[in-house]
Amino acid sequence: MKPTLVKGTRDFGPEQMSKRLFIFDTIRATFKRFGFLPLETPSMENLSTLMGKYGDEGDQLLFKILNSGDFAGSLAPEQLAAGSKAMLPKIAEKGLRYDLTVPFARYVVMSRHALTLPFKRYQMQPVWRADRPQKGRYREFYQCDADVVGTDSLLCEAEIVLMVHEVMRNLGIENFALKVNNRKILTGIAEFIDAPGMEGALAVAIDKLDKIGQDKVLDELRERGFSDSSITALLPMFTMQGSTNEVLEKLKNWLTTSETAQRGIAEIEEMLALVGQYGLENPKLELDVTLARGLSYYTGAIFEVKALGVSIGSISGGGRYDNLTSAFGTSERLSGVGISFGVDRIYDVMEELNLFPEGAGQGTQVLVVPFEESGRHVGLPLLASLRGAGIAAELYPDLSKVKKMLDYANAKRIPFVVLIGSEEVQTGQLAVKNMVTGEQQKMSADAIAAFVQAG
Amino acid sequence: MKPTLVKGTRDFGPEQMSKRLFIFDTIRATFKRFGFLPLETPSMENLSTLMGKYGDEGDQLLFKILNSGDFAGSLAPEQLAAGSKAMLPKIAEKGLRYDLTVPFARYVVMSRHALTLPFKRYQMQPVWRADRPQKGRYREFYQCDADVVGTDSLLCEAEIVLMVHEVMRNLGIENFALKVNNRKILTGIAEFIDAPGMEGALAVAIDKLDKIGQDKVLDELRERGFSDSSITALLPMFTMQGSTNEVLEKLKNWLTTSETAQRGIAEIEEMLALVGQYGLENPKLELDVTLARGLSYYTGAIFEVKALGVSIGSISGGGRYDNLTSAFGTSERLSGVGISFGVDRIYDVMEELNLFPEGAGQGTQVLVVPFEESGRHVGLPLLASLRGAGIAAELYPDLSKVKKMLDYANAKRIPFVVLIGSEEVQTGQLAVKNMVTGEQQKMSADAIAAFVQAG
Repeated sequence: MKPTLVKGTRDFGPEQMSKRLFIFDTIRATFKRFGFLPLETPSMENLSTLMGKYGDEGDQLLFKILNSGDFAGSLAPEQLAAGSKAMLPKIAEKGLRYDLTVPFARYVVMSRHALTLPFKRYQMQPVWRADRPQKGRYREFYQCDADVVGTDSLLCEAEIVLMVHEVMRNLGIENFALKVNNRKILTGIAEFIDAPGMEGALAVAIDKLDKIGQDKVLDELRERGFSDSSITALLPMFTMQGSTNEVLEKLKNWLTTSETAQRGIAEIEEMLALVGQYGLENPKLELDVTLARGLSYYTGAIFEVKALGVSIGSISGGGRYDNLTSAFGTSERLSGVGISFGVDRIYDVMEELNLFPEGAGQGTQVLVVPFEESGRHVGLPLLASLRGAGIAAELYPDLSKVKKMLDYANAKRIPFVVLIGSEEVQTGQLAVKNMVTGEQQKMSADAIAAFVQAG
Repeated sequence: MKPTLVKGTRDFGPEQMSKRLFIFDTIRATFKRFGFLPLETPSMENLSTLMGKYGDEGDQLLFKILNSGDFAGSLAPEQLAAGSKAMLPKIAEKGLRYDLTVPFARYVVMSRHALTLPFKRYQMQPVWRADRPQKGRYREFYQCDADVVGTDSLLCEAEIVLMVHEVMRNLGIENFALKVNNRKILTGIAEFIDAPGMEGALAVAIDKLDKIGQDKVLDELRERGFSDSSITALLPMFTMQGSTNEVLEKLKNWLTTSETAQRGIAEIEEMLALVGQYGLENPKLELDVTLARGLSYYTGAIFEVKALGVSIGSISGGGRYDNLTSAFGTSERLSGVGISFGVDRIYDVMEELNLFPEGAGQGTQVLVVPFEESGRHVGLPLLASLRGAGIAAELYPDLSKVKKMLDYANAKRIPFVVLIGSEEVQTGQLAVKNMVTGEQQKMSADAIAAFVQAG
């Protein structure tokens, strides 16, 4: 019986991993340059920490870890017969983390005394969800989050806008849109049309405008319980096209009586003004009044990054929240704003658009190939000196046929091979073969590092 | 109720993480320079993949994941009443990986058609063990493994010796011993003293020589079932002190009739000869005939790295094995040799010896501090240009008291602060404060990047 992978999980072989590491390294370096500091939390959390934080569906999607040892030993027959739901808390106390936000909040609560605010952390770790696996949806995947908590300053929103541009530029994804919205505008519209608290349903319906058209959106709003007068009042919403500045003007003139909406508009304007001060060229910012990701959680800015011209699209999202730690019963209000990059989505986008740089999948740069025992006396010091120069190098460990050794170099996409036969040992002039062009030339061992580094 | 961590797990805050990343980056760069390519496997494996690979105790120490949904729904009352052990396979099909070797073997079996041999991979991921937590023993910890499979060449052993030296040098751990042994010598000794197959017990007892002395070791051997004649024949073993070459000579002359032992001795000699050819200065190799880590698994070379002058000691180990994939019923024999570094142990050693380089824990290099709104017009472009120069920089997001902002810089150990008051805005000469020396000097925004990079 051949072994298999757990459904919804993946191995990442050398080529995929090298590309993934390019993404991780790029995001990490950018986070760091923006002053975010690294945090890692354990894969397992107490179920008491995780349960109730993601809604009923989320609770179901948590992977639970069976207690160690005789987990059922203390259970009475009637407890065993009470069904899975009743038995669960008695046999499983731990679960795998579902996202990075709840563990971050748990960390902040437990370490509050040692933290200086504002606290800027990034975290790049896998998360697990017991979802039904399907194309592009996995049970184990990485999130890369950066958050700053302990300040209301809109400068943090501006920083996130800048950072998104930096990450995309460093990854080589030039064609993207950073959609922004503000929860207060959505809340204000719901108030304004006399449907207070219904901004969630509103956003979901209007989000479909492009796909199903205005009439069907209005039908859906009716089904979702919006009154005719609310729907009539909402009609100006469908004229909110144009540049970000034009839309902001329209919103301002439309939602005159909603203080909440006007505050949301002002927040976006201040954020845009700050972004302008950085000197960011050609910002890819787009105001999208229907954007509502994770609405129940966000209280101010809402962000979504979409790669354009690809099937996948959304690769990052985030926003401003009012109280990171309230779910743990803390009295201190810790407002924050964060952004999360999905490595698996970014990988797929970059593959589809062929954006990985040439060297991203590359490992060994030089393979040293002695034809016989005596060649090792020359090859091993060469190996040491190449590595000393920072060049990834290896020596074919067996004395095999030359063809087999060159096939190995090709399979590993090693660009240079140093061939050492008896003539080379005698003359000290080694044969360096460029595996891409097929060219071969002789040089002394000392000259090889510089030759390879010159490309 | 304040949240807690799962017992035996840890948060790694910014300072610890920065140091841990220094270790990860150093090991990864060294692995890469030696031609090892990255692999990552899922955290979860089928229990059918994991069970039976680590002995009965290992099976118990596996974290098992409860099946999703109504896990007990299909169980009959008598199945529920049959106890934990009988119930386990019906309610849990997955477990968390226990080490990186079994998932690597599983990967090789599943990907065999796509792999070119010899296959060199490294893997740096957490593993989980449901052990009783105690000082220095955790339930989640990282392993960093490098293995080459598909060749018997002793050059691979020599490469591992080189690589251990490189990793230690790059980490700054100068004071260490790389103990080596060969399983064949142990097997040969057991044969030679007429206690065939008892090399495990032999090694365990002799390993205590330093602690309990020769007489007590002999007592223990008697208790473990060694005959008086075996013990008499073993006595030369206690004279195996001296340099590696001296010990090799003594072994050769003692174990004359054991072909197995002579082969082990010859393998060590060939490995040492190859190591010599690299030009490695001052190798820290020590032959230790009692070294027997993971004996049941290793078939040739055995390695252990000990940091000297610290309480912890063992930070790495590995060896040659005969058949990576046989546990999965494969017929192809894949011999390999590998080394595993324990990041948590290395961290403790480096902390104890104060070996982390100055910059290893460092995050933000420059904090920009505007005293008022207008300072941001100068501060934000400065921030963008510092980051463009690769300098980690941030701007204090709120307009606070100067003391509070400087306290923030000190808490985050930010070495440079740029102060921007109204005078600075007018003159364009910004005040740059070195937070270590307390010195402060004025310069234009353009000059700051070079000033900071100069230290």
